[in-house]
Amino acid sequence: MTQFMNRKEDIVTDAIDGAIRASGGDLVRLDGYPYIRVVARADWDKSKVALVSGGGSGHEPAHAGFVGPGMLTAAVCGDVFASPSVDAVLAGILAVTGAAGCLLIVKNYTGDRLNFGLAAERARAFGLSVNMVIVDDDIALPDLPQPRGVAGTLFVHKIAGGLAENGGDLASVTAAANRVIEGTMSLGMSLDTCTVPGSPKEHRIPEGKAELGLGIHGEAGIEQIAFESAAQAMQTIAGRLAPCMSDMPYAAILNNLGGTSALEMSVLSNELAVSEIGGRIKLLVGPATMMSSLDMRGFSVSICPLGEVDEQLLAQPCPMTAWPGAKTLGPIETLQLSDRLTPIKSLSSEHAETAELLRKCCKILIAAEGDLNALDAISGDGDTGSTLASAGRALIVSIDSLPLADHALLFRAIGQELSQTMGGSSGALLAIFFAAAGDGASSGLLLQDALKAGLQRMQEIGGARLGDRTMIDALQPALNVLDKGIGAAAAAARRGADYTATLTKANAGRAAYISAVRLQGNIDPGAEAVARLFEQLQT
Amino acid sequence: MTQFMNRKEDIVTDAIDGAIRASGGDLVRLDGYPYIRVVARADWDKSKVALVSGGGSGHEPAHAGFVGPGMLTAAVCGDVFASPSVDAVLAGILAVTGAAGCLLIVKNYTGDRLNFGLAAERARAFGLSVNMVIVDDDIALPDLPQPRGVAGTLFVHKIAGGLAENGGDLASVTAAANRVIEGTMSLGMSLDTCTVPGSPKEHRIPEGKAELGLGIHGEAGIEQIAFESAAQAMQTIAGRLAPCMSDMPYAAILNNLGGTSALEMSVLSNELAVSEIGGRIKLLVGPATMMSSLDMRGFSVSICPLGEVDEQLLAQPCPMTAWPGAKTLGPIETLQLSDRLTPIKSLSSEHAETAELLRKCCKILIAAEGDLNALDAISGDGDTGSTLASAGRALIVSIDSLPLADHALLFRAIGQELSQTMGGSSGALLAIFFAAAGDGASSGLLLQDALKAGLQRMQEIGGARLGDRTMIDALQPALNVLDKGIGAAAAAARRGADYTATLTKANAGRAAYISAVRLQGNIDPGAEAVARLFEQLQT
Repeated sequence: MTQFMNRKEDIVTDAIDGAIRASGGDLVRLDGYPYIRVVARADWDKSKVALVSGGGSGHEPAHAGFVGPGMLTAAVCGDVFASPSVDAVLAGILAVTGAAGCLLIVKNYTGDRLNFGLAAERARAFGLSVNMVIVDDDIALPDLPQPRGVAGTLFVHKIAGGLAENGGDLASVTAAANRVIEGTMSLGMSLDTCTVPGSPKEHRIPEGKAELGLGIHGEAGIEQIAFESAAQAMQTIAGRLAPCMSDMPYAAILNNLGGTSALEMSVLSNELAVSEIGGRIKLLVGPATMMSSLDMRGFSVSICPLGEVDEQLLAQPCPMTAWPGAKTLGPIETLQLSDRLTPIKSLSSEHAETAELLRKCCKILIAAEGDLNALDAISGDGDTGSTLASAGRALIVSIDSLPLADHALLFRAIGQELSQTMGGSSGALLAIFFAAAGDGASSGLLLQDALKAGLQRMQEIGGARLGDRTMIDALQPALNVLDKGIGAAAAAARRGADYTATLTKANAGRAAYISAVRLQGNIDPGAEAVARLFEQLQT
Repeated sequence: MTQFMNRKEDIVTDAIDGAIRASGGDLVRLDGYPYIRVVARADWDKSKVALVSGGGSGHEPAHAGFVGPGMLTAAVCGDVFASPSVDAVLAGILAVTGAAGCLLIVKNYTGDRLNFGLAAERARAFGLSVNMVIVDDDIALPDLPQPRGVAGTLFVHKIAGGLAENGGDLASVTAAANRVIEGTMSLGMSLDTCTVPGSPKEHRIPEGKAELGLGIHGEAGIEQIAFESAAQAMQTIAGRLAPCMSDMPYAAILNNLGGTSALEMSVLSNELAVSEIGGRIKLLVGPATMMSSLDMRGFSVSICPLGEVDEQLLAQPCPMTAWPGAKTLGPIETLQLSDRLTPIKSLSSEHAETAELLRKCCKILIAAEGDLNALDAISGDGDTGSTLASAGRALIVSIDSLPLADHALLFRAIGQELSQTMGGSSGALLAIFFAAAGDGASSGLLLQDALKAGLQRMQEIGGARLGDRTMIDALQPALNVLDKGIGAAAAAARRGADYTATLTKANAGRAAYISAVRLQGNIDPGAEAVARLFEQLQT
């Protein structure tokens, strides 16, 4: 698959440079490209214990994204999924280690153990105090004496890093790291493999299957299981973690392996909370992409028992964007719906003349149904007539229950009626027209100006302008001359409606997608409806 | 493609519940499931202007992830890629709007405009002050009168939200939102389409092509272009944005559309910085997944001119994890490599007996090359003999330049020599063995104990234990009795080596992957090498 990279050989240095540029001056790198790729804190003064981690690249934001106050001092980056060299690790150690010493946090892979281990020996030969811990949190392969290090490593970074930031000495920082490693367990599941830069993608996991217990380097999981749902996926993971847990409260990391959508990750958060281990999780870190496997569509859950000290260290804020913080995994609080959600119906009032006018309008629209549908069949889906006629039929039934004696209340009531009985965009737009006209009338505008205010709001929200081949082409000229009488309005509406037949490009609504040839010579059905209404109200 | 969800109908409510549970008590929802899906700030007291946004789901963390102090007050969530209903929007407005009023921030899609617009009318009928702004930042389709709203919407949330948080009134918050909308432009590019929950994936973009100017709902881009590299991709985007930019400094959002790996996003950060618009970008937000299109493998760049006030509001911290902060897009600072990276060679010293012993060891290993290779062919790749013989040949040449008279210096020097001349895991492990033995000798340990310290460090780092079918099975028993003379050590080493032939399960190294049948009856080549060394040193 194509990827956003330049030369494959440069992907790690390009990415490191990008991370440094985007860090706002918080990160620097060693001047050792291309072989030595070390990212370090810009503000580091060697006054405290340094924490150095790293390994192969392809796990971003790990590890460079976690370099900063309270976590790592430096990250040593290898090629994608390959350990950095001894020299690179040594360069990292030498760059950040002062009298307080340095802790190397290494994930349990042979290459990392050896290269970090050898670098530690060379650093010690210079008289530096260097300790090393090996993270082996993966429980996918229970019989293997050397479990892999995966996302649980972040607990070590955060808790040991927090202690170092608070001034802990090398022995206590190392002890904290080992305490976290002792209790941390992780397990992952994926629906698809990752795409290694420059390599063809391996399609290993068939549709409907999930791989359980995969690593973070594209290696196959211990088993492929039938995938049913997010709930079943999380139950499977929780079911494997649960037997290993003690009675202590736990922290959990919900890690996106890279390609899972944020929507799905939130679904998984919910499933984790309601899973058999959910009640024992006090703090949740994530969901977030923290220890990725490039673009893998999967997730992992890591858990760590929380003593009081570790809980404080884990929750201690740190400024790096990649660290999502540790938050209590909580219940769902809800707010009651407002009782205003059901529209208040205005009390009906009598006004014979208005009732008559309204009834007449409805009848005009009902009578126009066939003609308007025919016009709409040319530019749309042929239902403008039916939509307006339905609204007319509904309104005619409820006329006597309307507040006929008050324009402001009446317009609003018509708006409510239309929003409930007339579907689609046109229903919503007419509802907005009448609601805003009601607002205008209520604020003291005269009838014509209130209706014009309604038109303006409808245009703001609908986005159509004069000449866009909509009902506005008839309605706007009509309202503009309404003070000169219904005859003037009708003439203006007709001129506007006829004008739409000359418009060969619609800019709004569905007609925007219709070719000019089809539109030519045909009046817009909305504009025709408006013109007929005004014309027939004269009679 | 399979996805981490349960019932398709529940994906949005499941995800909202997950987001609320993971918010640490910062978020609540309205009690209106399944139709009314509104997420709101838990700490909201209606004392300031409320900001309500939302729209279709599938853009996570937008919009619920941006609900919190300094951004949104509430998010109204529709189905995936579908506008929420009028009632849902109204419920959101009613839940959070106090005397200071409410600003609706709506992306420019017909459904959202209408539903938010109509809800605003209904809220106004209750006497609430409600303004609405329409975000139309997409420049993909320059001729369309109604450009889409995409990731640039986040500038509006942050700047208007910051002003509201600081106590701005509705008019000034609305003016700020409109000012940001006026200047904001966005453009996206993708290498693959997104996977809509429950629908088969459309494979629209062929290998080697990228789609330019796509929306955030899976709709096709304006054109498919040949994709060459991250640099070309960003140059294309920057080239379209540049002509629209003024002389002001700008902020940029680098948005992951969902499925792009973090590694690639960092490469794109670098390319943005060095692009033709890089020098005009003062603040960068991201790279991060902020306005996603489910799992789309793509990115977008949004830019916004930065007046002084807007710059402050954009940079103002806010606590939501989804907001990555706005940081200066900076140069790359580097640190010089330590001059200790080149190992210091100890001065040579003479000691005839030691030189003779070393020479003898080398010759023994060189002579054993063929036999050891044959043994390794059974359990590994057949090169143990050659690896050890090469190291022996290199060492024998340099014997006279070694610090022969000082055990501590000598062991360290041998370690250095091996780390440079002997490849693979075994080279690194032996280098660690000698380096740690040198440390032990330097700290005053006697020869046997120094070598045992070396063994211990090698085991710590390599992870192999007695019985794991490695050289340790011969070396450890030999070192344990070294004080009883070379004869005792040789006998112990031989017993240990022979014992490995009975071990049918290797737990470390490559042999861990070989079947028991193949291993049965064959001595581990590393253990054999150790046994031969001690045996032949006797003679």
